[in-house]
Amino acid sequence: MERIFIQEVVTRDGFQIEDQFVPTDKKIALIDRLSHAGVDKIEVTSFVSPKAVPNLRDAEEVMEGIERKEGVTYTTLIPNVKGAERAAFCKADEVNLVASVSETHNRKNVRRTVEESFSSFHDISSFLAGTGIAMNGTLATTFGCPFEGSIDENRVMELIDKYLELGADSITLADTTGMATPKQVYQLCERVLGRWPELPVTLHFHNTRGMGLANVMEGIRAGVTRFDASLGGLGGCPFAPGATGNICTEDLVHMLAFMGYDMNVNLDQLIEISKDLEKTLNHELPGQIIKAGKITDLHSISYT
Amino acid sequence: MERIFIQEVVTRDGFQIEDQFVPTDKKIALIDRLSHAGVDKIEVTSFVSPKAVPNLRDAEEVMEGIERKEGVTYTTLIPNVKGAERAAFCKADEVNLVASVSETHNRKNVRRTVEESFSSFHDISSFLAGTGIAMNGTLATTFGCPFEGSIDENRVMELIDKYLELGADSITLADTTGMATPKQVYQLCERVLGRWPELPVTLHFHNTRGMGLANVMEGIRAGVTRFDASLGGLGGCPFAPGATGNICTEDLVHMLAFMGYDMNVNLDQLIEISKDLEKTLNHELPGQIIKAGKITDLHSISYT
Repeated sequence: MERIFIQEVVTRDGFQIEDQFVPTDKKIALIDRLSHAGVDKIEVTSFVSPKAVPNLRDAEEVMEGIERKEGVTYTTLIPNVKGAERAAFCKADEVNLVASVSETHNRKNVRRTVEESFSSFHDISSFLAGTGIAMNGTLATTFGCPFEGSIDENRVMELIDKYLELGADSITLADTTGMATPKQVYQLCERVLGRWPELPVTLHFHNTRGMGLANVMEGIRAGVTRFDASLGGLGGCPFAPGATGNICTEDLVHMLAFMGYDMNVNLDQLIEISKDLEKTLNHELPGQIIKAGKITDLHSISYT
Repeated sequence: MERIFIQEVVTRDGFQIEDQFVPTDKKIALIDRLSHAGVDKIEVTSFVSPKAVPNLRDAEEVMEGIERKEGVTYTTLIPNVKGAERAAFCKADEVNLVASVSETHNRKNVRRTVEESFSSFHDISSFLAGTGIAMNGTLATTFGCPFEGSIDENRVMELIDKYLELGADSITLADTTGMATPKQVYQLCERVLGRWPELPVTLHFHNTRGMGLANVMEGIRAGVTRFDASLGGLGGCPFAPGATGNICTEDLVHMLAFMGYDMNVNLDQLIEISKDLEKTLNHELPGQIIKAGKITDLHSISYT
């Protein structure tokens, strides 16, 4: 079975919309435990304005406080050149740019047209040249937009092209509000990998409508091997109160591990870290494995 | 796209472990709304001892009170000849027998060996001969047992054979405690349909570990077209407190509808019925679509 790469986003995608500020030392400890559990990439934080995302106002402190485990890619989300400078100062391995495929979503999210977003990325790309920092291009709302509805696949292909012209090393196709169906995932991924067979493509799914792990399976069937996920399924979507957010890291690893996929991750450690996160945050997480246990956790016969 | 058959189990599998008795008139109204929403089969109730399952002590009244919509199969679970007699008296279209593939689970569930279960089914089969009532054979713990762990596929094949020798018209492969992985589902279903290409096979999944809809997709890929599901995802498993139960009917129908599968079901009606069920039971249901809405439910741009 092929190698699947697990990319953890809980401290960025999960924490940014939490109702509470997670203390800096707790973030650092969590990231270090995750790297030791063997995830391949960690989206540590966002170098955005502390006013825009107060929960991540400690971006520099977190980046400076964490252990840098060999083999783990420490990535950070950045919105502009200022963010790139902060990421470079903190020696991020990678920066993650985000533009939406949907014009409406991009305007709502970053108050720019998609064209303006890509123009601004030119400056980031110039700044990064020669720094050794990798550049990942994320396309939000790849599989659907909560304002515009369905998304034209041709537009996705065009925007991947734009990222590659800018020198992006890898691409993330993000299902920002959980609108992708398994069939759609297979079709788009087959087309993308058909055109760029060597391109490292990440799929970033939300489980908002329960299709998260089904979408992963279709992504794998189309040849994708990199998946974002959030510990405990922390995260969410402002348009779907009460619905689950990002796909859950330990649920994803559990499913793939018991199908024999090769990952670097210690599932038992992930489960423990997730249970501890639930205590830290003091609210229930949507992940299933922390409630149900692994399929190999057998019950004694005397149970009634 | 092929026709997929949606089989509703909420009033049996869902209600049997509820903390409350759902009033008979509410059960009848729910079943009638479900049949009008277009589900293909409804597992109405269980003809078991009222002491064993007090929540279903009104089995006869429910069967007599419901409308019998043409084209809908009204099935009932029965444990023995007494149950078959009750089902026949109520003119059930089908009875559903259950034996576990796992010896330990069967003993825990019905206090018999698997051999004893199948012996008792002979009497049921004799009783049913000539009545026109169809017989479905369910194999619980087909994909794993919470006591014994993994299940031998060969044993599943043997027990299907035993059901067919008894004259079963159809088979249900049940993942009683949510242990199936997508790969396992594909492999077993391919084998079963390879041997019995014309056999109507139902897959009965629980979403205990988040893999429910991924398992459905692999079942479909292997050629299965019949799926049990429970409205709102009501149900559960005594071994996994807090974990989700059966796969959720409206989440299943939502996923398949937006991939273009042909079903007979009105999704909007299902969602309304599920929201009303949440009010009736006065607790949250695990389904996602009742929280997140359909992927076509767009948001206005002025939303902040």
